[in-house]
Order: sequence, then structure tokens, then C-alpha cells
Amino acid sequence: MTGEEMHALVERLYPLCRSITGDGVRATLEIVSEHLDLAVHEVPTGTPVLDWTIPKEWNIRDAFIKDPSGRRVVDFRSSNLHVVGYSVPVSATMTLEELRPHLHTLPDQPDLVPYRTGYYAETWGFCLSRRTLDGMGEGPYEVVIDSTLADGHLTYAEHVVRGRSDDEVLISCHVCHPSLANDNLAGIAVAVALASRLEAPRYTYRFVFAPGTIGAITWLARNRDRASRIRHGLTLACAGDRGTLTYKRSRRGDAGIDRVMTHVLRDRPHTVVDFSPYGYDERQYCSPGFDLPVGSLTRTPYAGYPEYHTSGDDPGFVAPEAMADTLEALWSAVEVLEHDGRYQNLSPYGEPQLGRRGLYGSLGGRSDTKQAQMAMLWVLNLSDGAHGLLDIADRSGLPFRAVAEAAGALEGAGLLKRVGEDA
Amino acid sequence: MTGEEMHALVERLYPLCRSITGDGVRATLEIVSEHLDLAVHEVPTGTPVLDWTIPKEWNIRDAFIKDPSGRRVVDFRSSNLHVVGYSVPVSATMTLEELRPHLHTLPDQPDLVPYRTGYYAETWGFCLSRRTLDGMGEGPYEVVIDSTLADGHLTYAEHVVRGRSDDEVLISCHVCHPSLANDNLAGIAVAVALASRLEAPRYTYRFVFAPGTIGAITWLARNRDRASRIRHGLTLACAGDRGTLTYKRSRRGDAGIDRVMTHVLRDRPHTVVDFSPYGYDERQYCSPGFDLPVGSLTRTPYAGYPEYHTSGDDPGFVAPEAMADTLEALWSAVEVLEHDGRYQNLSPYGEPQLGRRGLYGSLGGRSDTKQAQMAMLWVLNLSDGAHGLLDIADRSGLPFRAVAEAAGALEGAGLLKRVGEDA
Amino acid sequence: MTGEEMHALVERLYPLCRSITGDGVRATLEIVSEHLDLAVHEVPTGTPVLDWTIPKEWNIRDAFIKDPSGRRVVDFRSSNLHVVGYSVPVSATMTLEELRPHLHTLPDQPDLVPYRTGYYAETWGFCLSRRTLDGMGEGPYEVVIDSTLADGHLTYAEHVVRGRSDDEVLISCHVCHPSLANDNLAGIAVAVALASRLEAPRYTYRFVFAPGTIGAITWLARNRDRASRIRHGLTLACAGDRGTLTYKRSRRGDAGIDRVMTHVLRDRPHTVVDFSPYGYDERQYCSPGFDLPVGSLTRTPYAGYPEYHTSGDDPGFVAPEAMADTLEALWSAVEVLEHDGRYQNLSPYGEPQLGRRGLYGSLGGRSDTKQAQMAMLWVLNLSDGAHGLLDIADRSGLPFRAVAEAAGALEGAGLLKRVGEDA
Repeated sequence: MTGEEMHALVERLYPLCRSITGDGVRATLEIVSEHLDLAVHEVPTGTPVLDWTIPKEWNIRDAFIKDPSGRRVVDFRSSNLHVVGYSVPVSATMTLEELRPHLHTLPDQPDLVPYRTGYYAETWGFCLSRRTLDGMGEGPYEVVIDSTLADGHLTYAEHVVRGRSDDEVLISCHVCHPSLANDNLAGIAVAVALASRLEAPRYTYRFVFAPGTIGAITWLARNRDRASRIRHGLTLACAGDRGTLTYKRSRRGDAGIDRVMTHVLRDRPHTVVDFSPYGYDERQYCSPGFDLPVGSLTRTPYAGYPEYHTSGDDPGFVAPEAMADTLEALWSAVEVLEHDGRYQNLSPYGEPQLGRRGLYGSLGGRSDTKQAQMAMLWVLNLSDGAHGLLDIADRSGLPFRAVAEAAGALEGAGLLKRVGEDA
Repeated sequence: MTGEEMHALVERLYPLCRSITGDGVRATLEIVSEHLDLAVHEVPTGTPVLDWTIPKEWNIRDAFIKDPSGRRVVDFRSSNLHVVGYSVPVSATMTLEELRPHLHTLPDQPDLVPYRTGYYAETWGFCLSRRTLDGMGEGPYEVVIDSTLADGHLTYAEHVVRGRSDDEVLISCHVCHPSLANDNLAGIAVAVALASRLEAPRYTYRFVFAPGTIGAITWLARNRDRASRIRHGLTLACAGDRGTLTYKRSRRGDAGIDRVMTHVLRDRPHTVVDFSPYGYDERQYCSPGFDLPVGSLTRTPYAGYPEYHTSGDDPGFVAPEAMADTLEALWSAVEVLEHDGRYQNLSPYGEPQLGRRGLYGSLGGRSDTKQAQMAMLWVLNLSDGAHGLLDIADRSGLPFRAVAEAAGALEGAGLLKRVGEDA
Repeated sequence: MTGEEMHALVERLYPLCRSITGDGVRATLEIVSEHLDLAVHEVPTGTPVLDWTIPKEWNIRDAFIKDPSGRRVVDFRSSNLHVVGYSVPVSATMTLEELRPHLHTLPDQPDLVPYRTGYYAETWGFCLSRRTLDGMGEGPYEVVIDSTLADGHLTYAEHVVRGRSDDEVLISCHVCHPSLANDNLAGIAVAVALASRLEAPRYTYRFVFAPGTIGAITWLARNRDRASRIRHGLTLACAGDRGTLTYKRSRRGDAGIDRVMTHVLRDRPHTVVDFSPYGYDERQYCSPGFDLPVGSLTRTPYAGYPEYHTSGDDPGFVAPEAMADTLEALWSAVEVLEHDGRYQNLSPYGEPQLGRRGLYGSLGGRSDTKQAQMAMLWVLNLSDGAHGLLDIADRSGLPFRAVAEAAGALEGAGLLKRVGEDA
């Protein structure tokens, strides 16, 4: 998928009213399933999942605040951000004074509508711009939220690309945010593109599309055994803004995925930050009982841009080329995961004579050496069974790809043998 | 005690003529004992202590240099710094030429009187300002030191605040310097204030007031067994100048006290320096046979200010607010020592639902999180039995106090259990 | 040897036409043997050495390109760099067009002649300045290389200074470069000076003078068992240019020699770089099968100066004082290697009373302490059997020499005892 195709997917998903349950999530997964083979799971309300319980399912058809002239001052149909997520049904006439405790604005960003939810609070409310609020008279207002909060299901989906190994790579995206583009429709789109690109890999790649927090907790509750198969993982969010890439380390801090992502980002403008138990679903995957090797890839990180959790996070905030760049970084990580490994130099005493094997320029005395030759020398020097190709790429400063190609050439010449299990 | 009260104590102790033995030390401890319950120890001259021997006791009543007109050009009564510590008795008439080898000045600080001692040299001498010396004629001068150097005792004292544990925290102050305020009357005053503030602690706190070097060696010689109970310790000196705080690490470099002090100073202007076998009595506590976890807390460090070991180190050089600040830093360290510990998250799979337990704001979607909530998430995430609260405070960047309060709240909610012994 | 004497040796060796085999190497070793007792080894063509085979021996008597007027436009007699090393014999008349593929110049350095070799290629060629080439007409030219490439020997030499221990220190110099002064006649000269200075050392010092790559491989092939005796080693090259010293770490990165050289260079302008499998014969010594603790000492590093591998690397590029400085750094390293060791403080409880033993100034209270006294305090404090003198010098920031002298004084006073084997 190109950046433009990913952007088109973001635009198509944007109007749906997602929440942690409900038909918005189902419609989202329906569209994703046009690209990927999805297994969709429905978990009934009341099911215990770890320390939590699946909540009631929330659905909404319409909501508004009508002024005395009958005009919809606030209208769910123009943006689903206008209703606090999980609002209970309301149908009342209220003065502005009575209504005010239920209205949320951003005083410092008067043109933007905030995003608010009240999942476990059995409350209701509206979000609107400060400017709209400032223009509202005393009322009375007709206030309607046509929602249902009732027993139902929590919905999440998985897409699995089977590999030669049962060891898994997890890519997890949250799918619970309504009309917010970077957070996280861009993440969903990049995950779809990545999944589409994988072919007959070594690892099994598992893509989880689930509501934030409760969805990850549900997946973990239902996959306790499988969790231990996860060798590497990423939560993927905020994948399309114009900022540079940010990698947040796993709780372990030195997991394989931490080294892979650090290497992949080394030659790009980027930021690496330490784990903290806040942000996306790495919070759940890295809870101490699981402590999975799962980091988080974003562009501008969680809550790091003014448009975060506001109506400013719309499809225009997301750039096709930024999503393409995120995808390329992920693909580089996949390349490392797929091709990393330890080798044994079969001619470890002194350098083997590369020239005789056609692997080396024959005219000596020149001070310029090509990257491919340096990569061969590094691979030979460090292939003592203890260092993997990623180690060699890190220590040499060479790109992983050059190191992997050198290893292939040396293996072809009988100078190198793969050893042990995958790194 | 307030900064002003500590300063008043410094002023009261200032005129006494202390040395490594003698009545000046006794008078000092007498005043300290008005604040603290002191056990005063007298160790006879000739007693072997480790590699050393308790020296003769030195006392002095008067000393002067009188010019031909009978005027006291140098007068012990105006400052006890004028006599080299441990000067043997003298009564002679001498020309300036004969006297000169016994006169000590500071050519680069012509208005200040230096501090000099000759404990083990059986010599004598006077200290005076360069200006005074420059004004002295050829003499002859009447030279008198009315001192005694005779068998007697070395005097030191201890104050102990019993804790629930026999494990000890050592606070050690030198009490051998005559009229020098920052070095170390300020240290004594802050130690007195800290001791006064401790109530029913977990650790047993031992305050040692002893002459430098020989006093610490004497304490160690007489407490070889007890030394192994010292879990954390500090020498405390130069506690009142207007510079920022300096922590000097223990010989181990990574002892508990090193981590505690580094944490406590993190959010203040400060300096941390590595151990060196020079300075105050950490030299003795950190000698390789003992290798105790004892660091050193000062403001401007040992020998780091121009007034050091001169008449410029007078009560005006010491500030009440600086002593109060030193005390607060020490108190923060005590808080860490008292409350650090390891906990086990009893709901380690995924995050527990804090909202249900009233521990978390219920309206989601907001990007601002309060310190208390972050502290709870960090404590839950790292409480795997391997990390203590100080570890969590260090890794999270949160203040220890916030982390300890979060642990308390979570323990109260049944989500956390204390494990193992004190850190 | 003084810097001037080393420079004279460089000048004397400069005109010889060295290569990886042949009489130029023999003549070089003959001159070195005027200074050192050399064991010269001749290894026959065809001998297998590790993954390589000793090549044919190459010798050359004359070579030139004569223009139609009979003038030698390019003349081996004026510089041996003019012939590509290992050129096969040629005697032909050629136009410039035909000759051109055999001509090597440096377009960016038009006045300099490059250095090129073709050891394993059975080819021929000339090197010349770009200016000379630009002045050449269409020809025809008489082209002669009067060389032989035939079965013979590879020649290398060793000089050994026996020590009390069979453990060895290796100093390895390449001797295969023709008229290049810094690379590596300066290295040879400094090695000769160092060897001349050693007397009855603790370690056995082995100096290897061998052609680059194939010579080191040959030495390793014939000394597999001896290699394991090498406790510390250096390749020595580019030892005379006016740049600052550069130490390149061994493959291990934390070998003794790495710590020694880092310490020795600490107080000089210098650079330390990590190992890479490129450069001089550390490539062979640090191949994974051997992984010897061998670093590399140069001034400006391998290929790091514009004159590198050109006619600009002549005796004027090398400075007597630079060679003397390299020698002094090496001598400091020898001092550390010879005198490092672990000691036990025999009075480890508290500080021993140095004053009583005449080891300490007797007048206390002064803030200036001499380096010798600090060195004694550091040695006493860290001599717990686990720290060696180099550890102490590193941690204290004191020069190794001061630390070693302090250890000697303390040992003399019965306060210290040497323990264990040499570090």
C-alpha cells in the first residue's frame, strides 16, 4: 500500500463513531477485513477479564443540543466527538446553567472540540468548542442523547501471518477512538499495509486490533499461554503526523525489539524514550505479570501534539508520506527480525584470503574500501558464535542490510555457517 | 530547631578552644548535651587504638607575643587560632629573627589568621595575619604559651536514637576545630537538630561527636563489632556556608546511602563527587578493613572555599537558611531510609482497575495526569519484588514521597503487599 | 636512541624497495640487525599458512617508461613507488593509449605519486604523478619492468628480550612498504629504540618485523602455541608524523593493554578509537580464532593523512621529536606493564599513622597536600587485594608512576605486601 492508499483508508474510517464497544468498532473491522483476513471476536458483557469485567455495550444513533429556535447548536451528526463516549441516554429541556456541568471545552484552544469519555461512570456530556459555548444564550435547550448502554459484546479482531516458527511478533493497534485520525486510524492503516506486505516470514506475525486498555486486557486474558510466545512486539499509534519517529522502549529496556528499533532508527531523525507505564497498550503488555518485550512506535508521541485528543486530529493532520515513512521503518525492523542470526566463521585464524575467492578487490594499497568489503571483514571478525548480525551492525556502524548481505556472500563462499537458534 | 536556633548554637560554641583532646572538647559536648542525651567517653592517654595511640591531652590557658612596649601583638585571648594546636609551653624572650620560624601567616590572604596544628610533633608556634607580621619590629618580644601537654584523656560522645531495628545509621561530626564556624560547628548544630527531630524510627540512629581522625579511629577501635551494623552513614561538615550541597560518595560508590543522597539531591542545585581518601572521617570509616557505607555531606566541600581553615570561617560565614537547607536534605534522606522497601503487585496481570477502587479519575481522554496517578502506575508496574520504592522514584523521576504515598494507597486498597526485609 | 637517531634510521631505510617478499625486506632486516639481535626466518614459496599460501618471491632491478627521445619519463631509480608492487616483467613498446590502463595517478593530488600493489594478481603497472602523465605525448614508449616473480621465500624477523616471565608482550611492525617513511619506517625505528631500552624486564618482549597481512599470518601459523602466551600486544605504525597519538583498542575492548594505553595517553593530547577489522596487523592478531589482546598505536591513524600511501610520506613528513614522543608513550606503557600489581594493606583498619613512620608532613591544618601523600592514601585505601596499581592510578587520577612510588614507600615501611600474580 502506498502512503496515499493508507491515507484513503484513514479518511474512510474517520467518520465512524468508535468506542470501546459497539457498532463503530464492528464497522471499522469490517473495512479492515476488506484488506486482511480477520478473525473477529465478540466477548459478552460481564465476562471477567483479568482484574476487569467486560462493560455494557454502548451504541449511539443521534445526539444534539437544540436552542430555543430549534437549531442544533451541538450536533453529533457533524462530529461524533461532540458526545462524551459512553454517555447514557438523555432527553430533557435544560437551561444553560443546568447544562453547563455536562459541557466540556478547551479554553486554551477555543476553536477545537475536545475528546472525552466516561466509560465506567454512567454519566453523560457534550464536547464543544469554546467559541460555540461562548455564543450560547441562557436557553432553554432541548438536550437529546439517543444512545443505548446495554448488555452486548466487546469486539476485537486478529490477523495472523503464519511463519515458519511459532514464535510471534505482535503488532497491536487500538481501535476505540472515534473521529481522531492520527490517534489511531493512521496506526491501523500502517498495520494493514505492513500485514499486506508480509510473505512467508520466519516469525508468525499477529496483528491485534482492539479497543484500548480493556481490549488489550481482554486479549491478554484470553491468550495467557500464547503471550509467552511473543518474542517481539510493538504498539503502533500516532503513525501519520509530520513529526519524526519515536520509539518507546519496553519495560525490560534491553529486549530484542528495543535493540532492533534503536538500530532501525539510528540513521533517521528520531527519538528513543524509556518505558513509562502510561501511553498506549504497552501498559498492559508490559504489566509485571506479563512483562512482554513490547515497545511502542509512534511519530510524535502520545499526547505530544496540540491537536492530540481534539477535533484538530483530523485526516488533514495526517500525511501520506509520513505513513509511508512509518511503514518503511517498520519494514526495516521486520528485515532485522527476519534475518538476524548468529554465524560461525569457519576460517577464524587470521583473515581468510577473500581475494582468492573473488570477494575482495585485488589491487592493494588503496585507502578507500567499500562498504561491502568492510561488512565482510566485520562479519568474519565477530562471527564467533556469540555475536549476531544485529550486534555486528551496531558495533560496526554499518546498515543491517549490508551486514546481512555480507553474511550471505560469506556463507555462499563456505566461510560462514549459521549457528544456534534465531536471535 | 530553626536555622536561627542552629546559628545561635554555632555562635555559642565558637569561642571555645577545641583540639583533639582537652577541655575545649568537653565544654563543647557539655553544651551539646543541653539538647541531646549524650554518652561521653574518656579514653586514657597511651591507649592503643588501631594503628594509633591516644596522645597526651593538651590544654591551654593563655598565650601571647608582647612587643617591647608590653603590648600583646598576638593574643590568644582575642582568637584561639593564634596558637598552633598542641603547642608545647614556651616562656622566652626572642628577637623577631629567632621567632620567625615559629610564625605562620597567609601571604595571599594578608588579613586572615591561618589555622595550624602540630599534634604529634612536640613543637610550638603562633598564627597571625600577614599584616600583623609586617608591622612587627625586631623586638625583642616576650613569648609565652601557657599550655600543658600531659597524660590525660581523649574525649568523644555518642547520642543514640533507638529504632525498631538494630541496623544503624551513623552521623559523624568532628569536634576538634577551635574557632572555625562552618568547619565544623555548623555540622554539629545540624546534627543536633536532626537528632532532635527523630522519633521512634525504624533504624537506630547513632550520632558520633569526636575529634577528627584520632576520634573516629578511637570509635572504630572500640566498636569493631558494632561497625558491621552500620547500614548507612554520613560524615557531616561544612554544613552552613552559602554554597550548594555536595555529596561525596562512599568508597563503595554504589552503597544504599549513595543512591539515597543522589536521589535526595536530584531536584536541588548540588554536586556529587566520587570518593577520595581525603577530607573528613569518611577516610577512616571507608578504610578497606571497614569499608563502611559512609558518604559525606557538606555544602561547599572540604578545603573548597577561601575562608577554609582561616579566621574568615567565623559565624558570619555561616547562614541560618543554609543550615536549615542542609537539615531538610538530611531529613529527606531519613524519609527515604525509613520508608524504602520492596512491594509485590498482587494484581500483576494487566493494570488493575483503579477507577473501580476510587483511585483514579473517572473521566477518560484527558491528557493531563496527576503525579499521584503516575506514581500509582509506576509502583504497580515495578512492584515485582525486585524493585524498591527508591528504585521506582529514580526510574520514574518522581519524588520519593509521591511514590511512597502511592504505595501506601495501593497497599490500603489491597493491591500491594510489602515483601522481604528493609532495603 | 634519540629522536634524531631514529630519524637517521628512517632515512637510511627509506630508499630500499621493500615488498611482502624479496631482497628489500632482507636488506631492511640487515640494517635493523645492526641495532638488535634478530632471528631471521625464511619461509618457502608454497608453504600453507592458515588460510593462505606463501606467494612467489618478487624482486626488481630496474623499471622505466622511456619517451621517443629516450628520456626516462618514469624511472624506478628515482623512486621505487613508480612500480606497482609485484609487477610481472615487461619489455614492450606501447602508445600512451595502450599504456594508460597500467598507469596510476592521484587526480586530486597531482604532484604526488601513489603507492599501489598487486600481490596476488599477476599484473603490472606504473605509478606516477598526474602532472607527469599530463605532460606525456602519444608515444610510442619503451616500457620495461626488469623484475622476477619466482619461487623463493617470505622473510620476517624476531627480536626477543627475555624477561623473568614466559608471558609475552608483542610489538609488531610491518616491513613491506617501500619508500614510505611514516608508514612504516618510523614504526620500525621506534620499535628498535624501545627494544634497545629494555633491560632485564619482568615480561618477555617479542618484536616481530614482518610483511603486512601475509607476514603476520605466517607468524601466527608458525606460533599458534606461543600466541596464547601473549598477554599484551601492539601493532606499531605511523609513529613519526606530527599529529597526536592514537590508540586503537583490541577486539576485546577491555584487555589489559587497552587499559594501559588509555591510562598512558590520559594526560597527553590523544585519541582512543574502538577496534575495527581494518588497518594494520591487529586485523590478524584479533581475528576471532586468536582474539589476542593486541591494540594498535599510531600517531595520525591509518589512512588518516593526505600523504598516506603517496610519495608525500617521505622522511620530511616524519619528525624526530614526534618519534621521541611515541617512544616515551610506549615507555610509559612498559612501566605500567612492568610495575602493575596488586597489594594488600597490612594495616587496613583506619588509616595507619604515616607521620610516625616519617611518611607524612607533621604540621596539620594545611589544605595543600602533595601528590606523593595523596598517592599513599589512595594506595592504602584501595589495596584490598582486588585493586591493582593501575586501577588505583585510574580511579585517583594520579600518574601511575606516583602510585607505584607510593606503593614502594609503603612496602618499605611494612604497610603493604604484594599479592597474587602479576596483573
